[in-house]
Amino acid sequence: MENCIFCKIIKGEIPCHKIYEDDKTLAFLDIANDICGHTLVIPKNHCRNILDAREEDLTAVMNTVQKVGRHYIENCEFDGFNVLNANEPAAEQSVFHLHMHILPRDVNDGKQIYPKLEKIDEDLIDICARLKID
Amino acid sequence: MENCIFCKIIKGEIPCHKIYEDDKTLAFLDIANDICGHTLVIPKNHCRNILDAREEDLTAVMNTVQKVGRHYIENCEFDGFNVLNANEPAAEQSVFHLHMHILPRDVNDGKQIYPKLEKIDEDLIDICARLKID
Repeated sequence: MENCIFCKIIKGEIPCHKIYEDDKTLAFLDIANDICGHTLVIPKNHCRNILDAREEDLTAVMNTVQKVGRHYIENCEFDGFNVLNANEPAAEQSVFHLHMHILPRDVNDGKQIYPKLEKIDEDLIDICARLKID
Repeated sequence: MENCIFCKIIKGEIPCHKIYEDDKTLAFLDIANDICGHTLVIPKNHCRNILDAREEDLTAVMNTVQKVGRHYIENCEFDGFNVLNANEPAAEQSVFHLHMHILPRDVNDGKQIYPKLEKIDEDLIDICARLKID
C-alpha cells in the first residue's frame, strides 16, 4: 500500500522503535508514548483491520502479542497488560493498517483503561434476538 | 475449572445471551450491558488470559471475534467495533478466563473507548533499549 505509514515502517522507509520482528509481524513502540511500553503489533501483509484480515495474519499478530506480553511480564517488571484494537473510523481507528495496541500495566498505576460507560436501556434479551448469529 | 463462572456458562450451568458458538469458542453478551452489543468471546478450554493461552485457543477466539465483528458490521448496522482485553488484575482483569470484549460502535456515538492518557517523560529510545526482545 503506497501511502500506508505502517507499510513504510515495515519497509524501513520510516524508522521505528522496534521491540520484536519475525517473518509475518512487527512490534514497535507507539510514538504517542502515553504509557510506558505502549506497543503496536502489526502484520507485514497489509490489511485495513480485523474485518479484512487473513486468518494467518491475525493468528501471527496474536502470537506476537502473546510473545511481547509474556516478555513484558516475565522480563520487564510489568504486572499486566491490556490489548486494544479499533476497527473503522467509528471505533476511533486512525491508521488503516491492522494494529493491536499493547498497554503494559503496573499494579496501582492509577490508570483506567476500561472505559467508563453507563448501563443502557435496551434489554439484553432484545439485543440478543437482534444480533445473534443463527 | 470448578469455580470459573465462564466455564459454568460454557457447560450451561449458568445461562447467557448467546450470540455464537462453535466447537472451540462461545460469544455472548456482557451482562454489564454498557454499550449495545457488548460481547465477550471466550475459548471453551479454560485459560487465565493471553499469557497462558494455547495457540489454537487464541487463534479460535480471534477467528470468532472476526466472525462476530463482520456480522455486526454487515448485518446489524454497526459502523465499527473495538476489541479490548485485560491480562492480570493490574490491567483490570476481573474474571480469570480469557475473554475478548467486542464493543460495537456507531458513527457519532459520542463515546471514547481509547483512553485519555498524558504523554510520559521517559524517552522512546530509552524505553526501547529496556524492553526490546533481542
